[in-house]
Amino acid sequence: MKAVGFKHQSICFVDKVRPEVAADEVVLRPLMAGICNTDVELLEGYHQFEGTPGHEFVGTVEESPGNPQLEGRRVVSEINCGCGQCSWCEAGNQRHCPDRKVIGIKDWDGAFAEYVKAPLANLHVVDRAISDQEAVFVEPLAAALQVSQQIHIKGDSRIAVLGDGKLGLLVALALRHYNPGILLVGKHRQKLGIAAEQGVSTYHVESPDVLADLGKQLGLFDVVIEATGKKDGVSYSIDLVKPGGIIVLKTTSHSPSAIELSRVVVGEISLIGSRCGDFSLALTFLRNKLVNVLPLIEAVYRFDEFRKAFDHARQPGARKVLVRF
Amino acid sequence: MKAVGFKHQSICFVDKVRPEVAADEVVLRPLMAGICNTDVELLEGYHQFEGTPGHEFVGTVEESPGNPQLEGRRVVSEINCGCGQCSWCEAGNQRHCPDRKVIGIKDWDGAFAEYVKAPLANLHVVDRAISDQEAVFVEPLAAALQVSQQIHIKGDSRIAVLGDGKLGLLVALALRHYNPGILLVGKHRQKLGIAAEQGVSTYHVESPDVLADLGKQLGLFDVVIEATGKKDGVSYSIDLVKPGGIIVLKTTSHSPSAIELSRVVVGEISLIGSRCGDFSLALTFLRNKLVNVLPLIEAVYRFDEFRKAFDHARQPGARKVLVRF
Repeated sequence: MKAVGFKHQSICFVDKVRPEVAADEVVLRPLMAGICNTDVELLEGYHQFEGTPGHEFVGTVEESPGNPQLEGRRVVSEINCGCGQCSWCEAGNQRHCPDRKVIGIKDWDGAFAEYVKAPLANLHVVDRAISDQEAVFVEPLAAALQVSQQIHIKGDSRIAVLGDGKLGLLVALALRHYNPGILLVGKHRQKLGIAAEQGVSTYHVESPDVLADLGKQLGLFDVVIEATGKKDGVSYSIDLVKPGGIIVLKTTSHSPSAIELSRVVVGEISLIGSRCGDFSLALTFLRNKLVNVLPLIEAVYRFDEFRKAFDHARQPGARKVLVRF
Repeated sequence: MKAVGFKHQSICFVDKVRPEVAADEVVLRPLMAGICNTDVELLEGYHQFEGTPGHEFVGTVEESPGNPQLEGRRVVSEINCGCGQCSWCEAGNQRHCPDRKVIGIKDWDGAFAEYVKAPLANLHVVDRAISDQEAVFVEPLAAALQVSQQIHIKGDSRIAVLGDGKLGLLVALALRHYNPGILLVGKHRQKLGIAAEQGVSTYHVESPDVLADLGKQLGLFDVVIEATGKKDGVSYSIDLVKPGGIIVLKTTSHSPSAIELSRVVVGEISLIGSRCGDFSLALTFLRNKLVNVLPLIEAVYRFDEFRKAFDHARQPGARKVLVRF
């Protein structure tokens, strides 16, 4: 089968053997997959990744020895694959299994291929009401919604989302149902427009430098969700949050951030790391049309145009680039 | 009146006018006061402090125009003095008033003087069952207990306190009532011994370098309370905490800490800043003999020996140095 290969920071197409599956695994045939910023980081060396990327995808079940009735069904797959043995996995929390593999990210080939393997237990059948293009957003939408599962988002809190990248947009679009006054702060007018069309309040900044003064203009926030993708985003968030407030960290920056912790201690601020989320909740949001993800799509490419698609996805400010099979 | 003065990083005795008080203030005559690491930082330039330090103290009410019945009573005083006007003060949370003054720390002269002024509303009468030497510990003990008011300390959690300085010791001694298995990790055998005598489990490390490997030896913790006083303490804490776990930050380091936030995000760790606490709760702990603070006393000096006392307090590893009037 044909698959994308990342190796030594270059992209190639490789010919691989179709994956073989155990009784608790399935083979999927991807229908559509999204390119994520994490894919760009993987190409640049994150996780010393070598192999086939692709962790945002929808596909058809091709082979499912453990549950043949699934064959032919359209599914999405959670990406964390736990060891199945440890206390985390036993508690149903394989997302935090210390020995986990992650589809398309860590020790498990991803969906930019004709076939991809997944654990049977990770699958969620996709309702007909959800298109392929929408289903590709289940993984990042689940990550956005995870904030609401970690902290109590109340309607009368003042909440700001910093960063109008793909994840920041999804966070604002998802959390406005919990907090209709949520404010998305970003530097891309077009992206802010996407959020505004769906009822999100937005605030445009020319450059991050002005964020330090934003608190004086807008007042401080009970909750700041940091999704800038930049290592300095957390410092700006500390400037913007009230004493006793919460900063939710969504940025997975791999260079250390310099943080003046005395400000966190004196202000009794909470910094809460937030990663993947619940696919069921994201599917429910999409099925009930609570979030319209379609305006987040920048372009759709054929699988054999993967290199072109990837170059497009890497352009600064690009929205979600999809690949169809 | 005679008072200690900090100016240009030197200590002197100055002759000051006895403070005059408004109807909502009192004048206290200090009986005993403790020297805190914050006092050392103030002398070194923190808060650009100039004036009289001293924020851990017990005294007798000398003058109380707003409530004359208090005169002659022995009291401790909370140290945050809010503006009384803002939303924080109106909500009874003057600890976070943005314009607050802090007795002996910020824009308000402290207790290393023959007299000290305090807001009437900040006073707590000290029960006869609590000695002066114990009462001086109300402020730091309240700060230690604040952890239990911010997060739910459960009996079956694995909890570690990093750092056996004065605050780390008090945190372990206070929180063992919530979590009898709490582990105090430190490098001073004598201080660990103080905690062990009161039933705290302890673990001695020769140097902080081994903390990175401690997780492998002892397993990971649900909660790590960072009280090392060092800017790198937070990184060691990240090494020691479980995914989804909590790090409570007690260290007010004024140099920025370099933190690899991707580990916080991927591990969905919470970092929670923790500062001052509830004096009533600390007084209740002392009255009911839940914590024996007396072994934490390094030495007691007369007020006129303040310089000698301060030099003693600055010695690495020194326990609490007290000054009596």
